[in-house]
Amino acid sequence: MSAVPFLSVANTARWVRERGLTTVLADLTEAIEADFRRWPDFDKTPRVAAHSTDGVIELMPVADATSYGFKYVNGHPLNPTRGFQTVTAFGVLADVLNGYPTFLSEMTVLTALRTAATSAMAARALCRPNPTTMALIGTGSQAEFQAAAFQQVLGVDRVRAWDVDPAAVRKFLRNAAELGIDAVAAESAEDAVRGADIITTCTADKAYATVLTDDMVSAGVHVNAIGGDCPGKTELDRAILERASVFVEYEPQTRIEGELQQLPADFRPTELWQVLTGVVPGRTSAEEITVFDSVGFAVEDFSTLRYVFEAVRGTELVEYLDVVADPADPKDLFALVSAARVPA
Amino acid sequence: MSAVPFLSVANTARWVRERGLTTVLADLTEAIEADFRRWPDFDKTPRVAAHSTDGVIELMPVADATSYGFKYVNGHPLNPTRGFQTVTAFGVLADVLNGYPTFLSEMTVLTALRTAATSAMAARALCRPNPTTMALIGTGSQAEFQAAAFQQVLGVDRVRAWDVDPAAVRKFLRNAAELGIDAVAAESAEDAVRGADIITTCTADKAYATVLTDDMVSAGVHVNAIGGDCPGKTELDRAILERASVFVEYEPQTRIEGELQQLPADFRPTELWQVLTGVVPGRTSAEEITVFDSVGFAVEDFSTLRYVFEAVRGTELVEYLDVVADPADPKDLFALVSAARVPA
Repeated sequence: MSAVPFLSVANTARWVRERGLTTVLADLTEAIEADFRRWPDFDKTPRVAAHSTDGVIELMPVADATSYGFKYVNGHPLNPTRGFQTVTAFGVLADVLNGYPTFLSEMTVLTALRTAATSAMAARALCRPNPTTMALIGTGSQAEFQAAAFQQVLGVDRVRAWDVDPAAVRKFLRNAAELGIDAVAAESAEDAVRGADIITTCTADKAYATVLTDDMVSAGVHVNAIGGDCPGKTELDRAILERASVFVEYEPQTRIEGELQQLPADFRPTELWQVLTGVVPGRTSAEEITVFDSVGFAVEDFSTLRYVFEAVRGTELVEYLDVVADPADPKDLFALVSAARVPA
Repeated sequence: MSAVPFLSVANTARWVRERGLTTVLADLTEAIEADFRRWPDFDKTPRVAAHSTDGVIELMPVADATSYGFKYVNGHPLNPTRGFQTVTAFGVLADVLNGYPTFLSEMTVLTALRTAATSAMAARALCRPNPTTMALIGTGSQAEFQAAAFQQVLGVDRVRAWDVDPAAVRKFLRNAAELGIDAVAAESAEDAVRGADIITTCTADKAYATVLTDDMVSAGVHVNAIGGDCPGKTELDRAILERASVFVEYEPQTRIEGELQQLPADFRPTELWQVLTGVVPGRTSAEEITVFDSVGFAVEDFSTLRYVFEAVRGTELVEYLDVVADPADPKDLFALVSAARVPA
């Protein structure tokens, strides 16, 4: 039997608790940045999306010369009203040489971690030095992961939180206290952004929303826009994008899904890997507004799967799945279903 | 825990043995045809391929209004020389309404079954009445499944087999005897096609090969061409395609991967669903040469996953995987990794 290592939800959660959330976020930030720095090594494609009335299901493949990875992920903004999560995911690594899967993992928890680590990585490259305060607009599943990553990677220890759902804000404040973050509930989105060095928008509506209007963004702010990630789903006032410097993960995908949807085809954002490798400058003045128009790209999941697999392989956290057929003669698959050769 | 039903390789094989290979092939042929008859219901896209020197890894998604499915599959022609199979696969069904996975299954065995069932479905619609003899060029993993499907669905009980690997031919003859098929080893590909009503080509080289030359194809023959399924990988002499009627699964994908690669962009094949629904005639004379330029399309896997899931759900063949996180509050994913709230 050619058994494939499998990391369950329970064992992913246990691994994060044992290793420590902040350690995992710090490690992931470095792992993702290391892969962004070797961007040309990857065979990249915009993710493949199946849209329906209520949401989207996406496949996100990427490969380098030796490893292939993909993630299955959904986005269904109405799910929490039905008792389901907005986003769930799982992912797979495979060996490019023979095409066999090498690792299958839950990625609902891992997606939350990698999204936060990617945001922190981008902010570290783009925001003003020594940020202390983040406005957090949208306090759903992703909120605590964002707060923890910005605290760990950038030292941001104050968060001003706002959400249309007051219960979600209370949930965030409770969790933020556990993380040692000085979090307050804002009266409104306008109130949340007051004095913030960084504004994170992570709302889930599948609509052209304006979570952030132009007057809410002061000079020098870094906007971490992670909720506009689907055709027809944006968060920012177009005027913000027009006076900001806009940075993206992978332009062909962001063009379809990100805030870029609002801009003409000749608008040229900067791909983040170019800043991380020093090819293109990031922020050039203290007054500049920087926007990370983040939609989530397959390389982030690839880095995460590889990092997690290295951390858990061979440990008791890994189970093994009989998901790859392994006939004794590789050309005799029929032997597996032959009535005359029932296995012992 | 939101556990996802999982069908392993061992349990897939057991299910096929218990239900009977020929019954499964007959049922799958009908299940796939039923979905081809409602072709416009599906959200279709060419599969997403990651090519490398030695092979390809592909993701094949498709959805109707209520169900989504995808398959992961590789194709590595040199794999058998290293003790691995050319093709392995697994697949997933999901609920379009909330995006949650509903079924995960091995699909190495299932791909062999659905490929054979699709071939039989196409031949039933396109070949002359009452075929008795099939030439089988390429006797790898797929060979016995093809022979069994054509025997079951069309009554073809004689097979003339050829492969460049004599051990693979001997393997096929042993297995064919178990299936009650009158199979003989041909001296060459030219010898194999003598007197055949149907010619099946299922070789694996990733190259522009000419497995079948123009002079080998007599009037009235149906060619079931399943091995040309990748950019740069074809099996048929172009002259055959030029004097035959060519039928495909989904033209945008076959254009990239199939024998169609050899033909100009203005060549118009017929999509098989149009024949199955009676919109377009299939064979129009006894002398006509028909070619099914098959590359394998996602609808076939979708039909197969749905059929198999219906057959096995609730039985002891199904295991359950903890692969979808399920926090008590769907907006409190952090609870799963909170150090303060370790689960009991």
